[in-house]
Amino acid sequence: MKENYMLSCGEAKRLYGVVKDLPIYDYHCHLSPKDIWEDKPFTDIGEMWLGGDHYKWRLMRAAGIDEELITGNAGWKEKFLAYAEAVSLAAGNPLYHWTEMELSMYFGIDTPLSPETAEEIYEKANAVIAEKKYSHRKLIEMSNVALVATTDDPADTLEYHKLIASDKTVGFKVVPSFRPDNLLRLDVKGYADYVKKFSKAAGIEVKDLASLDEAIEKRVAFFAENGCRFTDVGIPFFPSRKGSDEEANAAFTKALNGEKLADGEFDAFLYRMFVFLGGLYKKYGLSMQWHIAVRRNTNSLLFNAKGADMGGDSVNDPVPTGDIAAVLDEINTRTGLPKTIIYSLNPSGNDALASVAYSFPNVILGTAWWFCDHKDGIKEVIRIIARTGHIAGFLGMLTDSRSFLSYARHDYFRRIFCSVLGEWVESGEYSGNADEIARRVCCENTKKLCERS
Amino acid sequence: MKENYMLSCGEAKRLYGVVKDLPIYDYHCHLSPKDIWEDKPFTDIGEMWLGGDHYKWRLMRAAGIDEELITGNAGWKEKFLAYAEAVSLAAGNPLYHWTEMELSMYFGIDTPLSPETAEEIYEKANAVIAEKKYSHRKLIEMSNVALVATTDDPADTLEYHKLIASDKTVGFKVVPSFRPDNLLRLDVKGYADYVKKFSKAAGIEVKDLASLDEAIEKRVAFFAENGCRFTDVGIPFFPSRKGSDEEANAAFTKALNGEKLADGEFDAFLYRMFVFLGGLYKKYGLSMQWHIAVRRNTNSLLFNAKGADMGGDSVNDPVPTGDIAAVLDEINTRTGLPKTIIYSLNPSGNDALASVAYSFPNVILGTAWWFCDHKDGIKEVIRIIARTGHIAGFLGMLTDSRSFLSYARHDYFRRIFCSVLGEWVESGEYSGNADEIARRVCCENTKKLCERS
Amino acid sequence: MKENYMLSCGEAKRLYGVVKDLPIYDYHCHLSPKDIWEDKPFTDIGEMWLGGDHYKWRLMRAAGIDEELITGNAGWKEKFLAYAEAVSLAAGNPLYHWTEMELSMYFGIDTPLSPETAEEIYEKANAVIAEKKYSHRKLIEMSNVALVATTDDPADTLEYHKLIASDKTVGFKVVPSFRPDNLLRLDVKGYADYVKKFSKAAGIEVKDLASLDEAIEKRVAFFAENGCRFTDVGIPFFPSRKGSDEEANAAFTKALNGEKLADGEFDAFLYRMFVFLGGLYKKYGLSMQWHIAVRRNTNSLLFNAKGADMGGDSVNDPVPTGDIAAVLDEINTRTGLPKTIIYSLNPSGNDALASVAYSFPNVILGTAWWFCDHKDGIKEVIRIIARTGHIAGFLGMLTDSRSFLSYARHDYFRRIFCSVLGEWVESGEYSGNADEIARRVCCENTKKLCERS
Repeated sequence: MKENYMLSCGEAKRLYGVVKDLPIYDYHCHLSPKDIWEDKPFTDIGEMWLGGDHYKWRLMRAAGIDEELITGNAGWKEKFLAYAEAVSLAAGNPLYHWTEMELSMYFGIDTPLSPETAEEIYEKANAVIAEKKYSHRKLIEMSNVALVATTDDPADTLEYHKLIASDKTVGFKVVPSFRPDNLLRLDVKGYADYVKKFSKAAGIEVKDLASLDEAIEKRVAFFAENGCRFTDVGIPFFPSRKGSDEEANAAFTKALNGEKLADGEFDAFLYRMFVFLGGLYKKYGLSMQWHIAVRRNTNSLLFNAKGADMGGDSVNDPVPTGDIAAVLDEINTRTGLPKTIIYSLNPSGNDALASVAYSFPNVILGTAWWFCDHKDGIKEVIRIIARTGHIAGFLGMLTDSRSFLSYARHDYFRRIFCSVLGEWVESGEYSGNADEIARRVCCENTKKLCERS
Repeated sequence: MKENYMLSCGEAKRLYGVVKDLPIYDYHCHLSPKDIWEDKPFTDIGEMWLGGDHYKWRLMRAAGIDEELITGNAGWKEKFLAYAEAVSLAAGNPLYHWTEMELSMYFGIDTPLSPETAEEIYEKANAVIAEKKYSHRKLIEMSNVALVATTDDPADTLEYHKLIASDKTVGFKVVPSFRPDNLLRLDVKGYADYVKKFSKAAGIEVKDLASLDEAIEKRVAFFAENGCRFTDVGIPFFPSRKGSDEEANAAFTKALNGEKLADGEFDAFLYRMFVFLGGLYKKYGLSMQWHIAVRRNTNSLLFNAKGADMGGDSVNDPVPTGDIAAVLDEINTRTGLPKTIIYSLNPSGNDALASVAYSFPNVILGTAWWFCDHKDGIKEVIRIIARTGHIAGFLGMLTDSRSFLSYARHDYFRRIFCSVLGEWVESGEYSGNADEIARRVCCENTKKLCERS
Repeated sequence: MKENYMLSCGEAKRLYGVVKDLPIYDYHCHLSPKDIWEDKPFTDIGEMWLGGDHYKWRLMRAAGIDEELITGNAGWKEKFLAYAEAVSLAAGNPLYHWTEMELSMYFGIDTPLSPETAEEIYEKANAVIAEKKYSHRKLIEMSNVALVATTDDPADTLEYHKLIASDKTVGFKVVPSFRPDNLLRLDVKGYADYVKKFSKAAGIEVKDLASLDEAIEKRVAFFAENGCRFTDVGIPFFPSRKGSDEEANAAFTKALNGEKLADGEFDAFLYRMFVFLGGLYKKYGLSMQWHIAVRRNTNSLLFNAKGADMGGDSVNDPVPTGDIAAVLDEINTRTGLPKTIIYSLNPSGNDALASVAYSFPNVILGTAWWFCDHKDGIKEVIRIIARTGHIAGFLGMLTDSRSFLSYARHDYFRRIFCSVLGEWVESGEYSGNADEIARRVCCENTKKLCERS
């Protein structure tokens, strides 16, 4: 990588030197433990980049590329060339940055990708893949990754996590994270079937809220035994109303029976479960992540044609801060809060959200997420945490990605973070221990959370 | 104009050199085709600046100037002197920038306007107006304008557009845009009378939704025959609820009869019409503009005393992204979307709005509008489109203005755009074809939309 | 203070030279007139800093400090050392800036505060306090303060204001501000008791809306006689609905009798009182401040354990601009608006809010408040006022503080303001009378409001 890429001043460069070789604790991603275990070799940069990355698909659509070349039947080379055309004029887009960084870091290619260079770069990159025998593990290892926390369903057997843990040749840890979205989505078709599957995994017949609680705790304990340190929720709802336990139970049993829920019952269930899960995570020492303000499947034509996660999602309006405050306050009052990390997909409410988060112990704002994880968005979150909370407690970057090349984003973050902090030092606005802050944010804080037993 | 005005770095200057002489396609403005046709000579910079510009009136009020000197009976010279006083201390206001630019570009005056210089500048500017025989067409021509798209009512005869089109001496094109606000505002007194006028223009008796559809299509076809390329809507409502066609029809016929609408009926009508119009524009190959999140006549004392468009409007709360997504999704599913350009007057929702827009084909964010068209706002929209969409597809500037001097705003935009892009190039964040992006955004994209048949 | 601290360019430094010695008119703070009158000497920087400052307590909590060392029984020195630890790594936080500035300005200490230096700095600061005999008045006087406007309850006797006014040795003015929050909070327990106390202060038996109006006017007149120039409201509600006077009266009398209010009645009361108070302030020539979008006691565990104002408050969602516009419009229409200053704790709505404010005569946006009064927030408010309103009419800084050391914040503001303005001058974006703007904003505008009779 170009030595000073994204580093805005001399002090930024110095600070980057302090953190650039620290190991990565990727505490939230969507890599497949099965892929890691099987460790198949890659063969084609077109497939690596465009096989499953809805970020890139969106950019190509915005550039007017035909869907055939995006998610259609065109070959990987054609798709790669089409992507090159789109990204070459995407100044100011994080994909432009990541594309440059990934080409440089993993393929030693520092020529800008453009329609003119695309063919040559395609061939060269594929030659590197073959020559260096790139595979899933190989890429993780060469990215200096100490730990990968995957995102897993509560009913998951964790068989691949166990296999990986038992294999001494794997040079990094892979731990599961508990994400009970499927348990919370009473509104989704097939909910009852999912609960049956979940019942089986837990070895408990789930038929009401009491048995649901019991089964969840068994699964949380099972995840914890298998190295789980983090949990998550990413549903497109946030509870806006506290109901009674009776209402929550009614909602749940109606959903199991395929009956229609009364107004507010789903909300009562969600609220109750958020509070219950918070207490449970606290008990088991797990960190709780909330990914909020997302709208799924905004483009229903695309969803109906291609399915979910195809690049047709979008940012939702900010969740009212009162709703967030209410749930946090109730968990805090009842059981105390586990380490809690909130990410809002809508950046316009982040100042207010941070003020709510830092009103409670153990609650912090997470890094810029998804539509916000560009340079501007990352800088803004850093500044908001610094001015409203305490920057030295920030957990820094995660990949949130399905791509094995996206570890470049940790480097992206480190360069941006060192620039923000370095500018404060150079302008005389900060005269303290910048090295210590940089080390904590870029590695040590997440390391501690990952390692605490 | 000072050579490097608003240009932040060397690369910005270079890029500005690439685009500064490209013709202007002013695809959305409020110039009067009658004024252009009649082409009366100007005589007084006071009148030119303060005769109809509510931006300037607001600034004068904020500076504590007496209303007599704003929209009252004072003479143009007195008003000009009062404006000079207000603007001279308006650092950071776009009117300060535009005032400097207009004085320089059209009058060769580079002395800052202040209470001390105002009288001399007033005399000098008026001498230039007389000497150079400034008239409406003269100013447009010397501004290097290739096309002006006016904003027109569906009932308009387009007689002036036809006259201008038939006159070979006019050195630029003037085309109408279809803006059916009056057809949508069931809530406005006199609606039934307007529909009568519209019926007459269409040659169809409009008495229900079916005949309304038919009449609208006739008028759209008529506009298209007369060169229309763009449509617009700028009402202070956005449909928040889908109703049945029966409800929509009930709303419309009640409004025709002066009856009171039931709750939600107006919304059902609006939703239905937005979807219908989207499909119609698609059919006729017209671009669809939505100007949203505006509040009209906020200051009712001013409205009652002076009428509309006097500087008493304001920014409304962001339109919920779910409402926007719903209408876009329905048009996309039913008929496909025409080229769609969304402008929100409230900048705080723009990140989310962009994420919704770029979830659909053909939908983009428009440039910073009205209260947002200052340097900060323009920069922010550029960055949002770049990071969330695709900057090379941005349509760039429009004047949205009633003033013949406001073509300076295109130059303002180009300088700001070249600065943002130039900084990315200089910092090493973009190494692609910046010239191509600049040319597309500052001219070619709008040229293509204007010219496509 | 380091000469060029926070000054971003040469012109910023020059402008700062113009304003740095202008007197401070602190037109909104929470200093205690009793403390000023009694003028007890200070002894300990730990107590001065950590005795009542919930800003610092929040930062310490965010840094993971034990509550015992924050608001618990630990000694001042231990608390000071704990704060030093927290603040030393708080890059980007305004407390880091203020801590540096206060140590430099009041104690001549320019060593950064850190765990290594904390003990030495603690001893040195306490030695300075003793040697220079620091007391409440001493600190105000050495801060070049011309006037302090405290925040006072309508039932207050103003006895300390009278005592201070009668003492010729006090080198600055102390005037009361009228803040009728307790009269508006029908929802608070003990409301009827408060109204009894208020009745007594006014000498009128308040038993309905008519007698309430009469009593309020008596108290406003009393405050005005005692030098009051400003009023305020800071309740966590903003009226969202206009009701009838009957409803408002019903709400009030029910609250007096401890009865339950019907839906919307509280809102009807609030709306009616906001309009009434606006008219009254207009009559008495007082400025009206609105502090909006605050959420109180977000962390109820903390509130129940320690009480209010302990650092458990947060930012609320933006108040809908339509609600604000409605109340302003009604006051404007009925009586005309007094000088009105609006502060929103939620920065995301500030562009829209400014557009509403500047739609009315006499209404302006106030400076960045509380959670927003960091460098980024101050810069943003300056820019918003400049681009949407008129920067020369901005009222500049206030302390809003309970700390006698927080006059450093005026210097903080002046440095930031001169940087923003200076950058406009250096980049050629402003060529007018920057000195005049700086003088008005940093001193003269507030001086005029304070002095107008």
